[in-house]
Amino acid sequence: ELDIRPKVSSLLSRLVNYTNITQGAKEHEEEESAESPNMGTLMGVYLPCLQNIFGVILFLRLTWIVGTAGIVQSLLIVLMCCSCTMLTAISMSAIATNGVVPAGGAYFMISRSLGPEFGGAVGLCFYLGTTFAAAMYILGAIEIFLKYLVPQGTMTIFHATDPHGGDSAMLNNMRVYGSLCLSLMAVVVFVGVKYVNKLASLFLACVIISIVSIYAGAIKSITHPPEFPICMLGNRTLVRDFDVCAKTVVQGNYTVPSNLSEKFCPLGNMSSAQCDEYFSQNNVTEVQGIPGLASGIIRENMWGDYLQKGEILEKAGLQSVDVHGAMENFAMYVSADIATSFTLLVGIFFPSATGIMAGSNRSGDLRDAQKSIPVGTILAITTTSLVCILFGDAVSNNLVVGTLSWPSPWVIVIGSFFSTVGAGLQSLTGAPRLLQAIAKDNIIPFLRVFGHGKANGEPTWALLLTGLIAELGILIASLDMVAPILSMFFLMCYLFVNLACAVQTLLRTPNWRPRFKYYHWALSFLGMSMCLALMFISSWYYAIVAMGIAGMIYKYIEYQGAEKEWGDGIRGLSLSAARYALLRLEVGPPHTKNWRPQLLVLLKLDEDLHVKYPRLLTFASQLKAGKGLTIVGSVIQGNFLDSYGETQAAEQAIKNMMEIERVKGFCQVVVASKVREGIAHLIQSCGLGGMKHNTVVMGWPYGWRQSEDPRAWKTFINTVRCTTAAHLALMVPKNVSFYPSNHERFTDGNIDVWWIVHDGGMLMLLPFLLKQHKVWRKCKMRIFTVAQMDDNSIQMKKDLATFLYQLRIEAEVEVVEMVRYDISAYTYERTLMMEQRSQMLRQMRLSSAERDREAQLVKDRHSLIRMGSLYSDEEEEVAEPPPEKVQMTWTKEKCEAERRNRNNTPENFRELISLKPDQSNVRRMHTAVKLNEVIVNRSHDARLVLLNMPGPPRNTDGDENYMEFLEVLTEGLERVLLVRGGGREVITIYS
Amino acid sequence: ELDIRPKVSSLLSRLVNYTNITQGAKEHEEEESAESPNMGTLMGVYLPCLQNIFGVILFLRLTWIVGTAGIVQSLLIVLMCCSCTMLTAISMSAIATNGVVPAGGAYFMISRSLGPEFGGAVGLCFYLGTTFAAAMYILGAIEIFLKYLVPQGTMTIFHATDPHGGDSAMLNNMRVYGSLCLSLMAVVVFVGVKYVNKLASLFLACVIISIVSIYAGAIKSITHPPEFPICMLGNRTLVRDFDVCAKTVVQGNYTVPSNLSEKFCPLGNMSSAQCDEYFSQNNVTEVQGIPGLASGIIRENMWGDYLQKGEILEKAGLQSVDVHGAMENFAMYVSADIATSFTLLVGIFFPSATGIMAGSNRSGDLRDAQKSIPVGTILAITTTSLVCILFGDAVSNNLVVGTLSWPSPWVIVIGSFFSTVGAGLQSLTGAPRLLQAIAKDNIIPFLRVFGHGKANGEPTWALLLTGLIAELGILIASLDMVAPILSMFFLMCYLFVNLACAVQTLLRTPNWRPRFKYYHWALSFLGMSMCLALMFISSWYYAIVAMGIAGMIYKYIEYQGAEKEWGDGIRGLSLSAARYALLRLEVGPPHTKNWRPQLLVLLKLDEDLHVKYPRLLTFASQLKAGKGLTIVGSVIQGNFLDSYGETQAAEQAIKNMMEIERVKGFCQVVVASKVREGIAHLIQSCGLGGMKHNTVVMGWPYGWRQSEDPRAWKTFINTVRCTTAAHLALMVPKNVSFYPSNHERFTDGNIDVWWIVHDGGMLMLLPFLLKQHKVWRKCKMRIFTVAQMDDNSIQMKKDLATFLYQLRIEAEVEVVEMVRYDISAYTYERTLMMEQRSQMLRQMRLSSAERDREAQLVKDRHSLIRMGSLYSDEEEEVAEPPPEKVQMTWTKEKCEAERRNRNNTPENFRELISLKPDQSNVRRMHTAVKLNEVIVNRSHDARLVLLNMPGPPRNTDGDENYMEFLEVLTEGLERVLLVRGGGREVITIYS
Repeated sequence: ELDIRPKVSSLLSRLVNYTNITQGAKEHEEEESAESPNMGTLMGVYLPCLQNIFGVILFLRLTWIVGTAGIVQSLLIVLMCCSCTMLTAISMSAIATNGVVPAGGAYFMISRSLGPEFGGAVGLCFYLGTTFAAAMYILGAIEIFLKYLVPQGTMTIFHATDPHGGDSAMLNNMRVYGSLCLSLMAVVVFVGVKYVNKLASLFLACVIISIVSIYAGAIKSITHPPEFPICMLGNRTLVRDFDVCAKTVVQGNYTVPSNLSEKFCPLGNMSSAQCDEYFSQNNVTEVQGIPGLASGIIRENMWGDYLQKGEILEKAGLQSVDVHGAMENFAMYVSADIATSFTLLVGIFFPSATGIMAGSNRSGDLRDAQKSIPVGTILAITTTSLVCILFGDAVSNNLVVGTLSWPSPWVIVIGSFFSTVGAGLQSLTGAPRLLQAIAKDNIIPFLRVFGHGKANGEPTWALLLTGLIAELGILIASLDMVAPILSMFFLMCYLFVNLACAVQTLLRTPNWRPRFKYYHWALSFLGMSMCLALMFISSWYYAIVAMGIAGMIYKYIEYQGAEKEWGDGIRGLSLSAARYALLRLEVGPPHTKNWRPQLLVLLKLDEDLHVKYPRLLTFASQLKAGKGLTIVGSVIQGNFLDSYGETQAAEQAIKNMMEIERVKGFCQVVVASKVREGIAHLIQSCGLGGMKHNTVVMGWPYGWRQSEDPRAWKTFINTVRCTTAAHLALMVPKNVSFYPSNHERFTDGNIDVWWIVHDGGMLMLLPFLLKQHKVWRKCKMRIFTVAQMDDNSIQMKKDLATFLYQLRIEAEVEVVEMVRYDISAYTYERTLMMEQRSQMLRQMRLSSAERDREAQLVKDRHSLIRMGSLYSDEEEEVAEPPPEKVQMTWTKEKCEAERRNRNNTPENFRELISLKPDQSNVRRMHTAVKLNEVIVNRSHDARLVLLNMPGPPRNTDGDENYMEFLEVLTEGLERVLLVRGGGREVITIYS
Repeated sequence: ELDIRPKVSSLLSRLVNYTNITQGAKEHEEEESAESPNMGTLMGVYLPCLQNIFGVILFLRLTWIVGTAGIVQSLLIVLMCCSCTMLTAISMSAIATNGVVPAGGAYFMISRSLGPEFGGAVGLCFYLGTTFAAAMYILGAIEIFLKYLVPQGTMTIFHATDPHGGDSAMLNNMRVYGSLCLSLMAVVVFVGVKYVNKLASLFLACVIISIVSIYAGAIKSITHPPEFPICMLGNRTLVRDFDVCAKTVVQGNYTVPSNLSEKFCPLGNMSSAQCDEYFSQNNVTEVQGIPGLASGIIRENMWGDYLQKGEILEKAGLQSVDVHGAMENFAMYVSADIATSFTLLVGIFFPSATGIMAGSNRSGDLRDAQKSIPVGTILAITTTSLVCILFGDAVSNNLVVGTLSWPSPWVIVIGSFFSTVGAGLQSLTGAPRLLQAIAKDNIIPFLRVFGHGKANGEPTWALLLTGLIAELGILIASLDMVAPILSMFFLMCYLFVNLACAVQTLLRTPNWRPRFKYYHWALSFLGMSMCLALMFISSWYYAIVAMGIAGMIYKYIEYQGAEKEWGDGIRGLSLSAARYALLRLEVGPPHTKNWRPQLLVLLKLDEDLHVKYPRLLTFASQLKAGKGLTIVGSVIQGNFLDSYGETQAAEQAIKNMMEIERVKGFCQVVVASKVREGIAHLIQSCGLGGMKHNTVVMGWPYGWRQSEDPRAWKTFINTVRCTTAAHLALMVPKNVSFYPSNHERFTDGNIDVWWIVHDGGMLMLLPFLLKQHKVWRKCKMRIFTVAQMDDNSIQMKKDLATFLYQLRIEAEVEVVEMVRYDISAYTYERTLMMEQRSQMLRQMRLSSAERDREAQLVKDRHSLIRMGSLYSDEEEEVAEPPPEKVQMTWTKEKCEAERRNRNNTPENFRELISLKPDQSNVRRMHTAVKLNEVIVNRSHDARLVLLNMPGPPRNTDGDENYMEFLEVLTEGLERVLLVRGGGREVITIYS
């Protein structure tokens, strides 16, 4: 105790000393960043975020997006993506400031706060996202290189053989160059990751210069629009591979058909018959491609104009005559290369907003991560959002943004190329390290191999896998196809970040005390919804696939049983769910139609804390077939203050046995000074709220006759009384060791129900439930009922069959007639034996001091007469034979012979022989013997016999006789289940 | 006991006698059907289903659907709808055969098996669906009447004023006639519902004749296509309001422009300049409208051709010259009157498949509902599905199906009219009765008024409401707009039927024993998914609205707290959820970061079973702020067998108090022969699985000093020992009556923590948790720690501040230096008083028989010396003053004066005065007094003082001294919370 409660001052110095060397920091720290653990907000978070956010999408696609979707919808896209990342940044700031942040970024934050399952899923999503991002950056770089940096066509390997094949040739070029570029970059990363980091600021400079240049150009274009003429035929834009934009040119003094006309009129002359019909009916005009901001272009482009693949770009406002069904020269027009739609554009744009994790990924290198991450990330998002929105406003036509830049288009082309290459290199550096970190955590066993690094710390295998996955992305070849894929993975990741924040806020986890105060669960929830919405908006099938992948990873990690000591935020969720469900259940007792046995199985443990009768558990598992509540209780005799360890050991033993017997449930071991009291307490206080047991299962006290210690059966009868007092049902499987194990299968045989008194219908329900289990499935159910003299047994059988039909229970019905047999000598003898035995034992037990209470005892015994027959007073009246009948079969001679046999009893018990059996006991015994006769006769080969259990006598003096009656009743039967109802109906004919 | 366990024979006859008069049957039985409670499968289920399934949609829309969607997609639509209803029928059959079915149809089945909330929601959906169906049938009837039955235009009220307004004029006609028709029908229903039922078979005959007629016509058309010429201009179908289908007619010898030409050429002459351009460029042809099955029409119509609203119907295969941008004469062409799409057509077709409930609605009138409903319904669906599919194959053009019929078109027009009117009447009869049934169940209070009937049993108010809602549908006026609405409501209903079946199968409710065996949860689940899919396919916004309505009804009924004794199938769901969550929680102890206090509040009850200190509950509710587990436990002294009623009463009293104090949690009252044992059992066995308490809250035993009965504090100390043994934390609020109620708000003040020993961090966590509650929100937290002589208090303060920063807890930090004060006379005196008192009491208690144990007792007391100081051995060493110091301030004079004061004590206690106080007790008392001095000095005005609670002495003889130490420690403080950790860390700096 003294160790765990240290003095404050010594504790404090200990705590402060290891604050900076965090749990996982050491092993996950990356070697190359070890030299700079003191980066500030600007260098550590703001600029990396900025660099990641600006990138290939911004340069290559934003103008196209604005041109296609129109200004309003483009703004919407940008706003959606940016607000999504903004909300995620807020959630992430809260998570990052909730405790000491280990190095390793989003993966570490989430896995440590939501547990390994979510952490693993998010981590892999993030890894895949980063890997595909690398592919995207490489494709972007190649696109810039092939289209703008080198002269058109000089570097292409594949050339379009037919005019329609231009696309696929280009894609093949991309594939070849992309793969080359990827290999090159992988080698660079493998050899010298340090240089990559050194170049980062150079790349960043490129980005910033490019953006400034575009702005400058845009401002200049207001007054001096750059020359970018476009040739239009009717309202269609023509692909520029001719010289003059006119139908005819004046050559010398002649007006001859222009280069353009020749392309439309195959025969060279301009007679309209041979020319393309659209060409002849429409005029050729030249318009200004970049009209400048002042020219009303903004109004014109306010609304979008989505195109189907191959649809021809038409400019609204120009007149055109439509010609239908005729041959047309499609290759001449500028047409859409992919089908566009709002949703697709969202998916393509989103990757440009995915840089927000860049800062938190560097958490290990930051001086004060908890301060820098929120400030830097949120500032960066604000900056870039502003840039995007302004940008979107400024440039709005379907043209290369480069022509707009100032002072020279080359600035932006080279700038964007370097920026893209840099981003690709960074992704390719980061992804393997993330994979290595996940692999080192060892939550996903098959990733273990990627945890090893080379001598220089480079994660070789991880880099190889990353390269392979990125190659997949490059083989897709189209930037517009890769972008939505990585959007998905990033969005999944963001979704989980928001989820983690929202869940912890809502559950009020005590450990959730972020220093960043400006979060709110509603914001996180909104962010989560936006992520989900964006996923489904941009591509619902990708979204489903991504969620499927994440779900599979989650389940896999759960299945592998990751027992990381990170704790998991979801535990609070389980707790809340359990509490809510329990409170909901508590409202009232269930309706009869919802009644199901909720078992409290009372187990006896031997001295070594082993379960004495494990078949009780087997029976319970067969009865439940895996559903509903099972509590297994046991009592250890002793003092609780000293027995904590013993309790734990016993609980573990029971739990192991429960696992073996496949019982899903709870275990409760209590220490009590008396076993009887412990059981009474278990019966009273097990369960919680609506999850209370309604049925007690206990074993039969075998060998109670042999034992001189009356506690064995006193405890049993006391438990029976307790269950009755608590209005619980009771099941006592007798000869439980003969009950089938879970592996046996009965292929035939019967389950016999002896329905003597109606006790709430338990007898009918139990065989039905047992038959749900494989062991009993093939058994048939038979119901026997006993008709007495005044019953119409034919009518009874018919009634019973109807009743069972209404209950929807299939069973054979039999009515057994019990004629009023004479009470036989055997019965008489049994009763006598029983009473003598009781008397004998009682005398043995009576100490001299207690003899004076004997008188009272004898008086009480006479009250037994009023107890009636075995089950109830009603039956007693029926079964009561005229007193003289007893005498008829009980002859004097027999009695004498009996006495003679008993003469060899010890001296002091001689008086016992003079006892005459108690009348009511004889009657009860008579019923028991007769009933047992009938049952054995009919059900001796049954797999299981279910029987009403008579209630215990009200007066405790009859206890021993009660035990004897039960023994007689069940004599000669292999497996008997004694059942006593809890005083309520448990089965109903109504739906 | 005898009453609840009747004899089998008497029970049986009782059960069988009331089997046929079911629970709700009597009150819900409809008067007009009382005469025929013995309908068979054919008349009772099959034909009503057939009649409901064939109807207006089949006649008016199926051909149009096939024409629009093409044969393949139409087949798909029909298949989807039919398989959805088929699966629902299977689920419904299972529900219907699970017990005695009361009269009243789907509503009764679902409300009785899933509970009132679902039942109410489904019932109202079904009611709304039926009501809108009435509107749809009326609209259909009017459409047939106006379009086909009377000559075109003779009966119309509104006429199209301009060529484009034809639509809206027609709609207005529909509105007027529909309203008239509705009023008429409502009157018919109101006056003579019997005649409606009589006419049912007549209407059914109409349906069957019509279908037969169509088939006959279709077969005839194979060889003799009926004459139905259609005039085409180019590939556009012309509206037929001219005479000859040609551009010119030969009149006498002249070729003059035809009637048709005049419509296209406004000036009457056919010079192409004034004529419509499309007209002049295309030819006029006449084609056969119904080409017969043999003409290849099937291949041509295989694929659909969806149109936008106003788009012109074009026939593929005919040549046309397209003219763009020019004036066109749109009114002349047959154009689509609404935009069509696959999804819309699904919504329009679905109502024709909604008749499946017709059979089960009649459950009250059936001889053997459990047999007839499955057989009849499933047969009817099979029949109609076949008809629909064949039908769909046979007729496939956008024309009136009537022209195809044989022998005369009038057969089908009149047949369909009567069939539609009949279906409308039936809906209008059924809906008010359903509403009445729901209202009579009284689960939706505001519907109560609709439960009353008129003298003749007609539900007048319900009929009125139904009429009003149907009028809404009629005001929509378009069949194609109303159909999706009712589809939604019916689909909702089907969805719940499938849900009910799937849930009950999966949960293995014992009462779920349908006699119909051919169900499977996977089928029901598939059906449910199809319903959901169809809802969203046909119209996602309607679907959301319908689900919103159903959800609102559900929540409303839940809020109203319907306590129907139907039981609910969802209870099993809660049970499963709770069990799953609890099992999930059980895996291990939670991680430190997930630790949250799970309270076991021990309450004392007075003789009247009232809670003695309800403020304990207030405190618990403030600490939890509504989250996590709270178990409230109490012990009643007595014998469990006799105290069941008392337990229930006590539990109710505690639950009431919990509700008042807004503690959400569970209550557990146990009966035990000794309170101490009961508490030990509560501490051991409360909670279930992972929902175990980890903290015990108990009151202070006020007045233990005054009480001669040592049980008061013995129980207290024993509980402290038990919590320690069970590794639980302990909280003892002292002066709990001064604690704030939930309505108070502290606007300022401090919560002071005196962090003397580190005990797992509870002291830091508790103020944070309290501050989450409104009462304590404005309080500031201060942490005091005690520096002793060898501590560097400046460094300590700095360390503590850093530690709290890492913990993200805002608190003022103070380090109090405790110099080694001399032990004062006061201390000495207090110790002496304490020991004397103990001794005195002990002597009083010692009976003559126990005196011999005195020697042992005295010997044990000396072991107290080894106990050390107040908190731990460590502290004892530090705080231990040199023995001689005691003597320094404790002068002989003082001692004498003390003795003199005590001289007036009774004779037999004179010897006590000679006692010298125990050394270790003096030291402990010294620490306690000094600490108390410092605490009172600094925290006398604090709102709450949190303090480490010292552990109880190992030896029970020191118990009384321990109580005294605690009293001294907390003297002079208003509200004190003594806290003892459970031996584990509960707060961490890591995220």
